[in-house]
Amino acid sequence: MANCKLFQRIDVTLATHQYPIVIHRHGLSDQNFLQQWVSSSQVMVISNTTISPLYLHLVTSAFTERQCDVVVLPDGEAYKNQKFLSVIYDALIAQKHHRDTTVVALGGGVIGDMAGFAAATYQRGVRLIHLPTTLLAQIDASIGGKTGINHSLGKNLIGSFYQPDAVLVDLDTLSTLPEREFKAGLAEMIKYALLAGGQLLVDVEKALKQGLQFNSPMLPYLVGQCCLIKARIVESDEKEENLRALLNLGHTFGHALESYTNYHRWLHGEAVAIGLYCAALLSHEMGIADELLIKQVKHLLDLADLPYAIPQEIDLEELKHLMKWDKKIKNNQLRFVVIKKPGDCYLTDQVTEKNLHNTLITATEGE
Amino acid sequence: MANCKLFQRIDVTLATHQYPIVIHRHGLSDQNFLQQWVSSSQVMVISNTTISPLYLHLVTSAFTERQCDVVVLPDGEAYKNQKFLSVIYDALIAQKHHRDTTVVALGGGVIGDMAGFAAATYQRGVRLIHLPTTLLAQIDASIGGKTGINHSLGKNLIGSFYQPDAVLVDLDTLSTLPEREFKAGLAEMIKYALLAGGQLLVDVEKALKQGLQFNSPMLPYLVGQCCLIKARIVESDEKEENLRALLNLGHTFGHALESYTNYHRWLHGEAVAIGLYCAALLSHEMGIADELLIKQVKHLLDLADLPYAIPQEIDLEELKHLMKWDKKIKNNQLRFVVIKKPGDCYLTDQVTEKNLHNTLITATEGE
Repeated sequence: MANCKLFQRIDVTLATHQYPIVIHRHGLSDQNFLQQWVSSSQVMVISNTTISPLYLHLVTSAFTERQCDVVVLPDGEAYKNQKFLSVIYDALIAQKHHRDTTVVALGGGVIGDMAGFAAATYQRGVRLIHLPTTLLAQIDASIGGKTGINHSLGKNLIGSFYQPDAVLVDLDTLSTLPEREFKAGLAEMIKYALLAGGQLLVDVEKALKQGLQFNSPMLPYLVGQCCLIKARIVESDEKEENLRALLNLGHTFGHALESYTNYHRWLHGEAVAIGLYCAALLSHEMGIADELLIKQVKHLLDLADLPYAIPQEIDLEELKHLMKWDKKIKNNQLRFVVIKKPGDCYLTDQVTEKNLHNTLITATEGE
Repeated sequence: MANCKLFQRIDVTLATHQYPIVIHRHGLSDQNFLQQWVSSSQVMVISNTTISPLYLHLVTSAFTERQCDVVVLPDGEAYKNQKFLSVIYDALIAQKHHRDTTVVALGGGVIGDMAGFAAATYQRGVRLIHLPTTLLAQIDASIGGKTGINHSLGKNLIGSFYQPDAVLVDLDTLSTLPEREFKAGLAEMIKYALLAGGQLLVDVEKALKQGLQFNSPMLPYLVGQCCLIKARIVESDEKEENLRALLNLGHTFGHALESYTNYHRWLHGEAVAIGLYCAALLSHEMGIADELLIKQVKHLLDLADLPYAIPQEIDLEELKHLMKWDKKIKNNQLRFVVIKKPGDCYLTDQVTEKNLHNTLITATEGE
């Protein structure tokens, strides 16, 4: 049994709730570490078929002295729907979990979103611990309380804001993450670098050049910086009435691309990568950013071996139609996050049909 | 077009949200009154087949200059489930409602709970206005942010705390409420009288003796007092970690009775009436209250022409089993609200199996 090695603890302080993000290695193998975060006599672990053979036994063995039940879902965004949410509800009810139970989400963003929404809505809310096992979940999805499921017409259309009681980021779990998934997580890291600019952008570019891996000495620091940015933004705007929308940089395009391909073709991070490139093109198209920005974004995505162009076969009219489901829409007006320069991004509703059209056309020419 | 007559405005002030309860007559017929509460360009009215022929046109005609869509659900607790929740989601999506839409709940407790839960979870939360049309919804269900749906194994097992933006109580709507439903609402009023004791108990007893009706001059005052008690309790304990559980006086028994009969035999208030009688019996059985309390509660329920005894044919073991779903359970221990005397109620986990057994036996002997 390895002892947990702590790198950083970030406290997220909201109006009525506070919780820590703990960045560490070996925490999942350290029963004492896990036990300290769960005070209830009942625990329900939600995981998936990919993660459970690797890590589930570590978690359940920490809770042998409590009632510890398990739901293992199929792996993938395609299963983040009402049907599998009901599987979680039914298990909670069948195993007689009470309002003082704790739901533990062991997996990536999909597991976190579903377990989170189940925790938010079972008996009007029970405790929730995130144990994110993908880079994307560790630096983005597990932080900030967004939970939900997809509807056939769009991503995360049903959900709620529900804050966890702790986010325990064990970087060791990235050792078993497929390379493609690790890279997809880098898209969100690049997003933070573009939002923050400055030293983080320099550090991310440097790390990508050196070939950032799960065991790189730089990783704890970079993950910590990403979590810190997200935590501070969420603290200032928990319900995304304003500033928090910036975290959606690249996501209006990304979500539409995922929806278009029914969540099958790209990982979320890959769709976001294309979305970041589109956001740069749009910013240039609107005269907000110079051409250098486009090159810079493409360069970062290239370093991470991520896609950036919209494939030729995508029907751009259909893609635009799907964007009409974006949750940032206000007064029937689509809103996009644009980049003036790294470190200077903002939300705008001034995007014309022509801006959008030209952006999408140019994005397909990148191929 | 009648002008709204205002009786009382009660502001509910929570940590991150404030909203008014406005007790009035003729508000539904006053387009200016309704319009002032909705700032969005989209409105989704949720109602049922009983209420919609009576009042829906009043609401929709106030919003002719906006996108105003409607979902009419079948009437009854039996339809408060996932299937009909999805009907609301699908309508919101089909009519392209965005995150800045307003959901308006026009109906009783079931409509309020379902529309409330839909508003809480559509795009992670949209605005919500309650227009309660039953006495029970006006003094209880529409206040305090409890939303949810039933599961076949228990009431409100899936839901969330989600506060409305306004609760507009038009006492005129009680003119079309069936007498049985009005009486069922009186059970909650008696609950408040038992919780508060003192002058409210005196006033409620007096009003019941005089035969309280929808147009009684006492009604606005009594409704206001009930709303005020609930508002103050919710303010002190929004998420029911403590004090708010007192509002469940009689409900542990009541919910089990409803679940036992699959929500068909009794209206919620009728089940609560039996539950209040059981709570008095339990308080006496535990040596907390004297026999006078039992007589007093029975007297109040009699005045309101409400049931109090558990019918002989109910299997008490099965009923006890159903109580194990109560949301007040903590550390696997059932908790009940008991009455020392009117105005002095508290939550206890000291109820023995024998206490419960004797209480239920005695409750069936009342018949």
